[in-house]
Amino acid sequence: MTATLCDALLQKIERGEAKVGVLGLGYVGLPLAVQFAKAGVPTLGFEKDASRAARVGKGENYIGDVEDADLRDVISRRVMEATTDFTRLRECDAIIICVPTPLDKFKKPDMAYIEAASTDIGRNLKPGTFIALESTTYPTTTEDYILPIIERESRLKAGREFWLCFSAERVDPGNKDYKTHNTPKVVGGMGADAQRIAMALYSKAISHLHPVSSPKVAEMTKILENTYRLVNISMINELALLCGKMDIDIWEVIDAAKTKPYGFQAFYPGPGIGGHCIPLDPFYLEHIAKNYNFDLTMINTAGHIDNLMPHRMVIKISSALNREKKAINGSTVLFLGVAYKANIDDMRESPALRIMDEVEAKGAKVIYHDPHVPSFRTDHGHGKTMESVPLTEATVKGADCVVVTTRHTSVDYALVAKHAKCIVDLRNAYDRRDTSPAEQLSHSTISKL
Amino acid sequence: MTATLCDALLQKIERGEAKVGVLGLGYVGLPLAVQFAKAGVPTLGFEKDASRAARVGKGENYIGDVEDADLRDVISRRVMEATTDFTRLRECDAIIICVPTPLDKFKKPDMAYIEAASTDIGRNLKPGTFIALESTTYPTTTEDYILPIIERESRLKAGREFWLCFSAERVDPGNKDYKTHNTPKVVGGMGADAQRIAMALYSKAISHLHPVSSPKVAEMTKILENTYRLVNISMINELALLCGKMDIDIWEVIDAAKTKPYGFQAFYPGPGIGGHCIPLDPFYLEHIAKNYNFDLTMINTAGHIDNLMPHRMVIKISSALNREKKAINGSTVLFLGVAYKANIDDMRESPALRIMDEVEAKGAKVIYHDPHVPSFRTDHGHGKTMESVPLTEATVKGADCVVVTTRHTSVDYALVAKHAKCIVDLRNAYDRRDTSPAEQLSHSTISKL
Repeated sequence: MTATLCDALLQKIERGEAKVGVLGLGYVGLPLAVQFAKAGVPTLGFEKDASRAARVGKGENYIGDVEDADLRDVISRRVMEATTDFTRLRECDAIIICVPTPLDKFKKPDMAYIEAASTDIGRNLKPGTFIALESTTYPTTTEDYILPIIERESRLKAGREFWLCFSAERVDPGNKDYKTHNTPKVVGGMGADAQRIAMALYSKAISHLHPVSSPKVAEMTKILENTYRLVNISMINELALLCGKMDIDIWEVIDAAKTKPYGFQAFYPGPGIGGHCIPLDPFYLEHIAKNYNFDLTMINTAGHIDNLMPHRMVIKISSALNREKKAINGSTVLFLGVAYKANIDDMRESPALRIMDEVEAKGAKVIYHDPHVPSFRTDHGHGKTMESVPLTEATVKGADCVVVTTRHTSVDYALVAKHAKCIVDLRNAYDRRDTSPAEQLSHSTISKL
Repeated sequence: MTATLCDALLQKIERGEAKVGVLGLGYVGLPLAVQFAKAGVPTLGFEKDASRAARVGKGENYIGDVEDADLRDVISRRVMEATTDFTRLRECDAIIICVPTPLDKFKKPDMAYIEAASTDIGRNLKPGTFIALESTTYPTTTEDYILPIIERESRLKAGREFWLCFSAERVDPGNKDYKTHNTPKVVGGMGADAQRIAMALYSKAISHLHPVSSPKVAEMTKILENTYRLVNISMINELALLCGKMDIDIWEVIDAAKTKPYGFQAFYPGPGIGGHCIPLDPFYLEHIAKNYNFDLTMINTAGHIDNLMPHRMVIKISSALNREKKAINGSTVLFLGVAYKANIDDMRESPALRIMDEVEAKGAKVIYHDPHVPSFRTDHGHGKTMESVPLTEATVKGADCVVVTTRHTSVDYALVAKHAKCIVDLRNAYDRRDTSPAEQLSHSTISKL
C-alpha cells in the first residue's frame, strides 16, 4: 500500500501531471509557484488575501523578484492559477507551505499562520499527497508541530498516506544573481519515501538540490545561515560604535580586512537590522532552545545590540543637532530611505521606522524621501499615512538635519551635501576616502555612524 | 631636512642597499626576514634567545612555514645574519618589530615585549630610520605607546627623524596556499612620508600591499579579522552544544548551509579555541575599549563561551564514561592530538591541554598520542614532561576512553574505532554520514561534540 501510493505519486511527478499547490503567494510563494509553472508543472496558488489572489489571476505581478512577463505568460497559458478556496487543496498532489513566521510583539514565534495552513491542509488532504514547509521556523517544527495537526485533521498517517518535508526558502530580495531556480536548495524529507518524492518534485523547478538526513537538520540549516548574518552584523555594528568613539573609519577597516584572502567575510554596519529573516529567525531558535534548558548567549547578545541600535542612532542625530546648538524638539529631520536595504521597496522591520518614531516622539517634524516607497502607513498609535517628499534644494535646505538611513543608489547625495545644514550618515553614503571636491567641501557637516 | 632624510632612505631602499632589521625571529619574524633576504635585501635578525640566534646563524630552521633550503641559502650567501646584540640596530635603515603580544594570567595585554623592543630601538636609533610594528595589538599602540618610548629614548622626532608604521602579520601556520610573500598586507604609515617608505620597503618582499590612512586603521583591521573568527567559532561551538542536546548533526548542518552561494562562511566546532591569535587579539580590543567607556558585549560573550568549552568537553567525557558505568577517577583516558589545529605541531593555547589537566585533576590516568608532538612539558604546578604514546591496538584497548581533540590526518582512526571501548569525538573524525562498514560498526560507542 505504502509503496503503491508513493510510487504512484513519483510516476505522476515524472510524467509532469502532479499538481502543485503553493500555500501563500507572497515574496516566497509567488516566485516559487511561477517557477514551477514555467517548468510546465500545473500549479495552483492559494492565498487568503482575495485582492492578491485576484491580481495573480489577472497576471498582475506585485513581487519584485518575479518577472511581470513570466507571471502573465503562465497565467495566460493556464499552467498556473490562483484561488482563495482552500478546499481545492484536494486537487493537489503536492502542497508547499510558504506562509509567514513572524514574531509577536514580545518577540516570541507566532505560529498562527503555520497552524492555520496545517489545519487547512489536514482538512482537505487526499491520500498520497506530499507536503513541504518552506517557512523558516525552529528545528522540530515539521515533525513535532505540523505532523500532529495534519494527522489529527486528516486522519491520515504520515510516512504512509502522506509525506512531510522541510526545505527552506532562501530568497534574497533584490539579488540579481540568485533567484528561486538557481539558488541551491536544502531538502530534508521525513523518511526515505518523503525524500525521494521531494527530490523528484523540486528538481522540476530548482537546478541544485542538497538532500539532508531529516527535516530538523534542514530547519537548523536555515537558522544557522541567518544566525550567522545576525551575529556578524551585530558584531560590526558594535565595533562601528567603538570606532566612532576612537575616530577610526570602520568602512576603511572593513575594506582593508577584505584583502585577507581566507577566513574573512565582510559585513557592513548600519542603523540596525531589518527585513524578514535576520531580525526574526535566530529568535525562533532561542525559543526552542529554552525547551532544552539551553541559553543561546550569542544570539541573546546580538539581540541586545540590535535592539539598541535605532536608539543609539537617535543619540547620533541629537548630538549632530546639538553641535548646531539645536534640539531634536522643534527641528525638522529629513530621512533618506525607509526601506530596510538599498534599492528595494521592502520596509519590513526597517530600523529607519523606529528611528523616525523616536525622533518624532521627541518633538521633531519628521519627513522622508524614498524613491522606492512613495508612501506608507505607520502602524503605531492610530496610524497615519506618510508620503515621500521630493528631494529638492528647498527640501534639503528646509531640514535642520538630513539622516541617511538607506543607501539607495538613485538618490542625489551630491545635492544633499551641497545644501544640507547637517548630515547624519548611517550608511557611508559620504565616504571619507572620496576626494572629489564636492564631497570634500561638505565633510565638515557630516556625522558618521 | 625632513625631505632629505626621507628621500635618502627611499633611494637607499630602491638601490637595494637599505638594511632591514627584524626584531624577533619567531613564527612571524623568521619567515619575514627570510623573505626579505630572498628578495636580495640585506637582513639582520635580532633575537634575545641565544640558542635560536645561533641556529639561524648556522642556517638551521625551526619554523614550519620556512623552507629549510631558503634559510640555508640566504645564510650561506650572507644576505641574512642573526644576532643577539641589539646595539647593532644602529646598522639598520628599517626595523620591523615581530615580538609576541600575549595576555597575562588575568587576560590583560602583556606589553612587556613591545616595551622592551621600543626601548632597545630608541636607544640604538640612527636618524633616518623606518620602524614598523607587525605584532597584533590594540588600536593606538603605534602612535600612543611606541612613539613616546622611542622619542624619549632616542631624542629623535617621529615624522622627521624616524618614521612609524603598523602593518600586521597575517601568518596562518600550516597554510599551504598563503605564505608571507603572497598574503596581501595592510600598511598603515603615520603620515605621508612613513607611508611612502613603508610601501617602497614592503614591496621588495610582499606581492600585494593595501595602504590605509593611519596606523590605528591598520591595527583595527587585524583585530577585526580575528574578532570575526573568534565570534564565529564561538557561535558555532554554542550551536554545536545545542545540536548535541537536540540530536542534530552540526557537521551535516554546516555542510548544508555551505551550499548557500552568498552570505555564508563555514566555521566548524571543536573543543575550544587555540593558537596565538584568536584567543588573544579580541581581548586587546576589549582592553582599549574600556578606556573609551565602551563594553564590547559580543567579544565578552564569545570569551564566556570559549572559556567554558574545555570544561564542557570534560563533562562529555564524564558522561561517556558514565554510560559504561565508570568514573573519570581511576579511568585511563587517551587523548588523540595536543596541537591546537590539525597537521601542525603548535600547542599554544591548545584546548586539549586544559581538558587533559582537568581530567587528570579529577583522578584519571592521562596519556596522549600526537604524531606532530613527540613530547611536551606541562606548565602548570611544578611541570612535568609528557611523551606521546604509540598508537597501537594495545594502547587503544588499554584506555577506558579515547578522546579526539585534534584531527591530524595521519592518525589511524579506523584502528581506534576497531579497538576502543568508548570514543569521545570532538572533531568529527567519525562522521555520522560515513557509511563504510568499519565506521558503522563502531558508531555505538562514539559520543560526538
